Amino acid sequence: MSEREQFLMVARRAREAASGLAPLPRAAKDAALHAIADALVAAAPEIVKANAADVARAREAGISEYMIDRLGLDERRIAAISDAVRQVAALPDPVGESVRGGVLPNGLELRQVRVPLGVVGIIYEGRPNVTVDAAALCLKSGNVAMLRGSSSAHDSNTVLVQVMQAALAGTEVPADAVQLVPGTSRESVKHLMRARGLVDVLIPRGGASLINSVVEESTVPVIETGVGNCAVYVDAAADVDMAVDILLNAKTQRPSVCNAAETFLVHADVADAFVPRALEALKQAGVTVHGDERIRAYGDDVVAATEDDWFAEYLSLDIAGRVVDSLDDAVAHIRTYGSGHTEAIVTTSQPAAKRFVALVDSAAVMVNASTRFTDGEEFGFGAEIGISTQKLHARGPMGLPELTSTKYVVTGEGHLRG
Amino acid sequence: MSEREQFLMVARRAREAASGLAPLPRAAKDAALHAIADALVAAAPEIVKANAADVARAREAGISEYMIDRLGLDERRIAAISDAVRQVAALPDPVGESVRGGVLPNGLELRQVRVPLGVVGIIYEGRPNVTVDAAALCLKSGNVAMLRGSSSAHDSNTVLVQVMQAALAGTEVPADAVQLVPGTSRESVKHLMRARGLVDVLIPRGGASLINSVVEESTVPVIETGVGNCAVYVDAAADVDMAVDILLNAKTQRPSVCNAAETFLVHADVADAFVPRALEALKQAGVTVHGDERIRAYGDDVVAATEDDWFAEYLSLDIAGRVVDSLDDAVAHIRTYGSGHTEAIVTTSQPAAKRFVALVDSAAVMVNASTRFTDGEEFGFGAEIGISTQKLHARGPMGLPELTSTKYVVTGEGHLRG
Repeated sequence: MSEREQFLMVARRAREAASGLAPLPRAAKDAALHAIADALVAAAPEIVKANAADVARAREAGISEYMIDRLGLDERRIAAISDAVRQVAALPDPVGESVRGGVLPNGLELRQVRVPLGVVGIIYEGRPNVTVDAAALCLKSGNVAMLRGSSSAHDSNTVLVQVMQAALAGTEVPADAVQLVPGTSRESVKHLMRARGLVDVLIPRGGASLINSVVEESTVPVIETGVGNCAVYVDAAADVDMAVDILLNAKTQRPSVCNAAETFLVHADVADAFVPRALEALKQAGVTVHGDERIRAYGDDVVAATEDDWFAEYLSLDIAGRVVDSLDDAVAHIRTYGSGHTEAIVTTSQPAAKRFVALVDSAAVMVNASTRFTDGEEFGFGAEIGISTQKLHARGPMGLPELTSTKYVVTGEGHLRG
Repeated sequence: MSEREQFLMVARRAREAASGLAPLPRAAKDAALHAIADALVAAAPEIVKANAADVARAREAGISEYMIDRLGLDERRIAAISDAVRQVAALPDPVGESVRGGVLPNGLELRQVRVPLGVVGIIYEGRPNVTVDAAALCLKSGNVAMLRGSSSAHDSNTVLVQVMQAALAGTEVPADAVQLVPGTSRESVKHLMRARGLVDVLIPRGGASLINSVVEESTVPVIETGVGNCAVYVDAAADVDMAVDILLNAKTQRPSVCNAAETFLVHADVADAFVPRALEALKQAGVTVHGDERIRAYGDDVVAATEDDWFAEYLSLDIAGRVVDSLDDAVAHIRTYGSGHTEAIVTTSQPAAKRFVALVDSAAVMVNASTRFTDGEEFGFGAEIGISTQKLHARGPMGLPELTSTKYVVTGEGHLRG
């Protein structure tokens, strides 16, 4: 059987499982999630063994220790993954929620209710915990997960999916509700991207190049996630202490994630008060500043920023900085270079805050708060499948409701249209 | 300048206009809509003249009188189009509506508010009234409209857009907020489909082949609309009088639209009571029935149905019919052949209605009502840009809120993430 035929077999099984999974009540789905959580702990030795093979291959291939750390699983990490599944079980079920409803003038009862999307494809990188996280979030929201992880985690993912499928076999949820896309080649991703009609939505989680290639090639609708070139704008009316703290937190509290700040923009009127203190604090934290000429006037350590720096999602201890002459200039910079993820303004001026919020076209806009708060857990969603940077369907952190569609249910008594 | 360069120039103007339009208050948008409505009436002679050229070309090309009727504009129709714009102005503004909000445990204020999508591309067929309707709905929801109508309506659309742009020039709304995609070639549509980053969403309105080609080739997110292979299922527990009335209404009240019924499925237990009466009523209404063998046993006029008939969106006085042995068999038929638009069940059994609603995966499910009710006006939305048959972003009739995205606004007092 060719890889494409194998893929279609798996996708058809997923489609079939979606029909069985969608109408199940919350109790059946939660029981299945607890069965998965139990099975993961019970199978920990087997999972660790498969993972060791992936790690050994990664070492041979000279992959960085940072990536190997993300790849590695031990009994403690497996226990944490299992706990996360139980936390998903504890979340409310979005399916069946009434979004809109009422009685129309002609007496027809109209209800718009949440229903699962169906089959959700997830394309992700080397972290095998995503295999379980994504499967659990999909299952809870009544969706079948078609998982396509990195080839570097192939053995781990294979065992994790086998363990989950075996756990489901003893529950009301079809065992086929969690699927691994067969194959590890570049082609195998393409099968998933061209599976319109079998797969309802694709969520690529990873860097810009992965996401771009999925958007370019997919005929399945895509939710773009995660690229974050976030800016902190320090307004003329900023509280300078607060501005320094927010910038430092946004840049350094966890530099490798999408909601970390990559750029700061300072109003010229506050530059003398703010920039020297900001540069000092950033230096202490080990951050390299890539500045325009006006920032460089305040410090010898500032590297000259290039056009690329304004676009950069560093994900490291680097930040680009620029002095602007107005709030509108800051907005224009963000419009040109930003990725539409999260921007923050620090200001004591209510009109300035209002204007920044109105003009900045990003998934999240922070007023006097760190960009790091754009996060499903922080927003109180209990879990997150990713952060959407597109405008269609979902924007910002995506929780369980964002993994649903809706259906209109219209009830009459023989109503005819006149 | 090449067609592509022309396109990019127009698209960049649209993008720029989107930034100016998005933050405008309702009053500014409504004033602009009334200015458009006035201008259309004032320019009626000019519009009629341009339209006459399109109609003459269509006649020369031997296009059917039905299509020519859709293409034609006279002063009465222009007045109706103008009135429709005023009705859009009277609808509530979805922009700024708070979708979710509250205070997080750490004191951060979180609000999710509706914002415009940005630039909305609409690809449509020969009806020039869509040019104005779509522009008005986009403008009201704060979006720039990039319109790509049929080449058969080129002269009409050109004048209509010129009139709208001239009307906008005297208002707060940027004149560039309504744009016609330059060119009439197949290539010019492709520029629109590849304009990711400049265009935020594409809504193709038309037949299956247009929609399929857009989905295949577009890198801009697409909302699929309008293909409707709708089924009426007559349950074992149906009120036969009601079932005949609903089937007849769903098929014949307006056969050319997407929410008309194209298939009926009858439970075997009610076939003797229902089918002869249904065939007689359909025959009286001039409908040709394409039936399976069990339907054909009831009438000599029934044409033998082929596999193609089950898939067909006839949009004519034809209907496919089949006897099924259970509700689940009806659902299986719909799952195999349906387009996910609207299905109806006629039944007095509450459990049967509940099961049908739960298992049928369509944008709308009717219980004891005609499929013809799936419509933005009927649902009370006041207007409709199309009926989505996809699951992402919007499903079913799309009103003004479906032309928006959301933005999270988070307000703190120097909040840092720990």
